[in-house]
Amino acid sequence: MSKPTPISGFPEWTPSQRMIEQYVLDRIRNTFELYGFAPLETRAVEPLDQLLRKGETSKEVYVIRRLHDDEQGPAGDDALGLHFDLTVPFARYVLENAGKLQFPFRRYQIQKVWRGERPQEGRYREFVQADIDIVDRDNLGAHHEAEMPLVIGDALRSLPIPEVRIQVNNRKICEGFYRGIGLTDPEAALRAVDKLDKIGPAKVAELLAQTAGASEAQAKACLALAEISAPDASFADAVRALGVSDPMLDEGIEELVRVVETAAEHSPGLCVADLRIARGLDYYTGTVYETQLRGYERYGSICSGGRYDNLASSGAVRFPGVGISIGVTRLLGLLFGTDALSISRDVPACVVVAVTSEEQRAASNRVADALRRRGIPAEVSPSAAKFGKQIRYAERRRIPYVWFPGAEGAGDEVKDIRSGDQVAATADTWTPPAADLKPLVS
Amino acid sequence: MSKPTPISGFPEWTPSQRMIEQYVLDRIRNTFELYGFAPLETRAVEPLDQLLRKGETSKEVYVIRRLHDDEQGPAGDDALGLHFDLTVPFARYVLENAGKLQFPFRRYQIQKVWRGERPQEGRYREFVQADIDIVDRDNLGAHHEAEMPLVIGDALRSLPIPEVRIQVNNRKICEGFYRGIGLTDPEAALRAVDKLDKIGPAKVAELLAQTAGASEAQAKACLALAEISAPDASFADAVRALGVSDPMLDEGIEELVRVVETAAEHSPGLCVADLRIARGLDYYTGTVYETQLRGYERYGSICSGGRYDNLASSGAVRFPGVGISIGVTRLLGLLFGTDALSISRDVPACVVVAVTSEEQRAASNRVADALRRRGIPAEVSPSAAKFGKQIRYAERRRIPYVWFPGAEGAGDEVKDIRSGDQVAATADTWTPPAADLKPLVS
Repeated sequence: MSKPTPISGFPEWTPSQRMIEQYVLDRIRNTFELYGFAPLETRAVEPLDQLLRKGETSKEVYVIRRLHDDEQGPAGDDALGLHFDLTVPFARYVLENAGKLQFPFRRYQIQKVWRGERPQEGRYREFVQADIDIVDRDNLGAHHEAEMPLVIGDALRSLPIPEVRIQVNNRKICEGFYRGIGLTDPEAALRAVDKLDKIGPAKVAELLAQTAGASEAQAKACLALAEISAPDASFADAVRALGVSDPMLDEGIEELVRVVETAAEHSPGLCVADLRIARGLDYYTGTVYETQLRGYERYGSICSGGRYDNLASSGAVRFPGVGISIGVTRLLGLLFGTDALSISRDVPACVVVAVTSEEQRAASNRVADALRRRGIPAEVSPSAAKFGKQIRYAERRRIPYVWFPGAEGAGDEVKDIRSGDQVAATADTWTPPAADLKPLVS
Repeated sequence: MSKPTPISGFPEWTPSQRMIEQYVLDRIRNTFELYGFAPLETRAVEPLDQLLRKGETSKEVYVIRRLHDDEQGPAGDDALGLHFDLTVPFARYVLENAGKLQFPFRRYQIQKVWRGERPQEGRYREFVQADIDIVDRDNLGAHHEAEMPLVIGDALRSLPIPEVRIQVNNRKICEGFYRGIGLTDPEAALRAVDKLDKIGPAKVAELLAQTAGASEAQAKACLALAEISAPDASFADAVRALGVSDPMLDEGIEELVRVVETAAEHSPGLCVADLRIARGLDYYTGTVYETQLRGYERYGSICSGGRYDNLASSGAVRFPGVGISIGVTRLLGLLFGTDALSISRDVPACVVVAVTSEEQRAASNRVADALRRRGIPAEVSPSAAKFGKQIRYAERRRIPYVWFPGAEGAGDEVKDIRSGDQVAATADTWTPPAADLKPLVS
């Protein structure tokens, strides 16, 4: 077998990196559960027609088929594709199980998703997302839109990563404003303004004229709105100073004030109202969120979402929702790329129990057992080589302690191989310092 | 959108079941880490030619392709398929990263795998496996084969499930014995004996004659070997009483004695030497494991594996390994099917903080925040409805406590809605009984 090579866009972390990823996922999950979100995991596949409901992402879908299933066309009615996000499967799950769920339904979901996009830095074809959503039947209280940044702020601030800033906007502000200045295709205007960071104001003005039929004055007004940014409710005064009046605009301002003020009380500096944030996806209808990681702004948002009123509906029943998604793989990929995260050892073990001779392996097993029963991760040395070699086994993995079972009559000893200190110990009572028990992420 | 329906073979647990699954996975992972196994996660896809190296499973492979990737034939050289187990990807990972890994390399891996088999009870097309493996370069100590059942025994016995019994055998015993009685195709004999449980001894004898060229006496000897079963080293006497002599047979007996005796010291009753266990896969070369769950024996093994010497090799370098895999989805599917597992509530929240009026929501947020900061999962009521309705919100989710923020001047109170007891409390000090903090699985 020749040496295999990586597949572009399908990242694989080293075991040490995977330990860091697990630490990050555990922290995120813990925060989600502290806020009462229940876990959900959906299957990796969805019917292709479900996945293609949102036209613009269809090119990214991976279709699956059984290798020898010749009779089944790959794009037939019953064709399956890998999900490309966790929102579409969640909306499907809610519709499928609405009769069994309690509403409002708060769930989190941490899973891999797949997109056949061109791989580039911070973009993958297989990656992990960590989502929270709240859906209700018929109506969803707007206060849930203010709750999302609290959860995400707590989750991300529990991690050893740079500061984050959540940028919030409200689709109703944009749509109401565009209507208020007389534009008839607010969706087109939204898509044009969404490109502001990429192509700059002059090109956006052109695009507004071309695709949304905006006059020069209208384009200028759209750009003026997009330039408004404030860490508090003062954004509302800036919007009103533009002199546009529309009921949907007022509703959007009121909702966004609530989001910003709730966040300011909970976590000062976490949220900023940034009226250029639009989110490309058509299905958002209220608050939208993006998140920048300080020092990595050029790679785009690491955590995004928004309110959607029309993603799931069945006959006359609607299930409006609000959700947000942390791009865990993207976040870790950026931080691993700059060596911004490290871990104190390469394996979970805190102790290597040395083996005096193969005949004495059972004695070493008993020591390891006694340690494990008290929650101390321990390996037994793979060989009864000279102790120097067994110590190097621990050193190469940065395992801090080596345990030496005593010869007959003599007691056991344990050595801290970093300091060289070696002390008498018994496996039923010895406890490492708390900082040594588990690998430390920093 | 019409109501979606489930896809056969792709199970989805309810949020309550998912909480149980997470509890099970956390326990398994904790045991794996106590034994010093490092975590690894590999991508979901492998090159198709890698997946097809083991001929007999090719029919089960799912191929993936990008929907609009017309130029790429689905079965071309660079075609990708979803992995159907975690052993093949692990062997590939070891070869790809051998220069960066420390050997022996102990890793665990808990991931979904996919097989396009016909779905039936206890069999799925998408399911979770929890694997441990130890690989070394060139040589792997036989004592690692004795370590596997200790880990699995601890992992499975930490779960609220029926008793398990690990059945062990050693390929060298079978192969050495078959050679010792003069059979020239021990692989064929192994495959025939592997069908013993399914087709019975008479049919196995026929098959031995047809496919392995066995005489009546040889077939009888093979069946006599397969009938041997003992919870201790006495199986070795029973084998020797059959009067067959072969060096490989002796080696296998010695190794299996070690496995059984190590297990007996660690966990009496956990392991039994059962010489009919063969495992279908060709790549095993030493100890093999299967695991029965008491009361669910007819559904087959829930945890299997073995030693493999030739799965990963690159030029002159070999990486022999031993591994075992818990079929988590199969295990849970069986237990969910008989309602053998339950959980004390349907969401993680321990407390619902009531909302007196929408204007007072910020006060309720502050209470919830104070509770969360001390690790107590808390939701804020989604509406400021009458308190009776807010209590029913908690009841329907079996959340044990409802918190009532005091009106101005008055203190807060918390109600245990199971007993009806309501007491004065402050969010900075109140603590629920330990048994109420997290959902309890039983």
